[in-house]
Amino acid sequence: MRPGPPQGCLITLEGIEGAGKSTQCETLVATLAELGIPFLQTREPGGSPIAERIRALLLDPEQEGLCAQAELLLIFAARAEHLAQSVRPALEAGTWVLSDRFTDASFAYQGGGRGISAESIAGLETLVQGALRPDLTFLFDLPAELGLKRAKARADLDRFEAETLGFFERARQVYLQRAKLDPARFRVLDATQDVEQVARHVREALVDFVARRPFSGQ
Amino acid sequence: MRPGPPQGCLITLEGIEGAGKSTQCETLVATLAELGIPFLQTREPGGSPIAERIRALLLDPEQEGLCAQAELLLIFAARAEHLAQSVRPALEAGTWVLSDRFTDASFAYQGGGRGISAESIAGLETLVQGALRPDLTFLFDLPAELGLKRAKARADLDRFEAETLGFFERARQVYLQRAKLDPARFRVLDATQDVEQVARHVREALVDFVARRPFSGQ
Repeated sequence: MRPGPPQGCLITLEGIEGAGKSTQCETLVATLAELGIPFLQTREPGGSPIAERIRALLLDPEQEGLCAQAELLLIFAARAEHLAQSVRPALEAGTWVLSDRFTDASFAYQGGGRGISAESIAGLETLVQGALRPDLTFLFDLPAELGLKRAKARADLDRFEAETLGFFERARQVYLQRAKLDPARFRVLDATQDVEQVARHVREALVDFVARRPFSGQ
Repeated sequence: MRPGPPQGCLITLEGIEGAGKSTQCETLVATLAELGIPFLQTREPGGSPIAERIRALLLDPEQEGLCAQAELLLIFAARAEHLAQSVRPALEAGTWVLSDRFTDASFAYQGGGRGISAESIAGLETLVQGALRPDLTFLFDLPAELGLKRAKARADLDRFEAETLGFFERARQVYLQRAKLDPARFRVLDATQDVEQVARHVREALVDFVARRPFSGQ
């Protein structure tokens, strides 16, 4: 029996609101396409039918009463579905996965932002993911004040975007700590730079990462 | 400052489908009312607005793809909301709480039924409940085959009721093990007996329990 294609890589995009993740996601999409790597573009919370129903519940600005623990558990429930329905089947078929947010966001938002212990979050990470971790994570970093200013310039804030400056600053610090502890996985980008400059760094980092990895089709 | 009323008691009803929980819940309601104990009647999953939205997602027979871990996490998310919005405020005000299902059901259904480890479930129990545990649990026990026959006589099976005999038998065994390990909390009732007989035992057990506890209003 011939071995199947090599497992795909999981690439995640992280950063607080207003960091330009969505824009730079397009840079990554274009670069992967250019390199001929088959990939699935997805996002969290969401990325599968049930997970999208959970996302709607989570982001609904009417759900003011949602307690921090319920929020955390809903996010991991959506993640379990996202992994089972979309991410794992893709990776196993040799397809790469590009996810706008993943578990680092739970440590940053529910841990740093809402004060849930990192141990509790790590326990859920193991329950839901087993040994699966992202292969490469782009962290778009900028001061919370600037991010919030950018996010507020967009209309219709969701339940997270309506949070306070302190919440986002705590989330940012957790992101930076995690990046410091795992420099092999993280690429930290200065998101205060102009879009073209950030895009150039993103492109270079991805090309460099791909050059060091085997993937389906090469 | 005078101390507040004593904390209310949490009474839970457990058992597989067709065990007669709903009927015996009425016996408990009538007995509590007779005794003049203020109480809140509730159920899981559900019992608060967000938790009821999660319940709808969980019981939807269309959600065939829902993975076991997502199911478990949704149940604990609903539980966190139920506790924060309904159960804890009631108990703190000295109101008793009567809940149709609680965490023993997670050990029975998601543990025994779906095979998730008791350690994982116990970790979620601690995360969501802290030290809160039921004060009294009625377990309505009967062979899964009989329970399933009764449940199927009702129309419109939900996602759980549509499960197999083996699923319910495993759930039953976990319920019985838990009752054996905590006899001070559990009252195991033979649900193959006729309804009036079960009701008499339920009433007696509750009256006996109340006689040994202080409660608001006495």
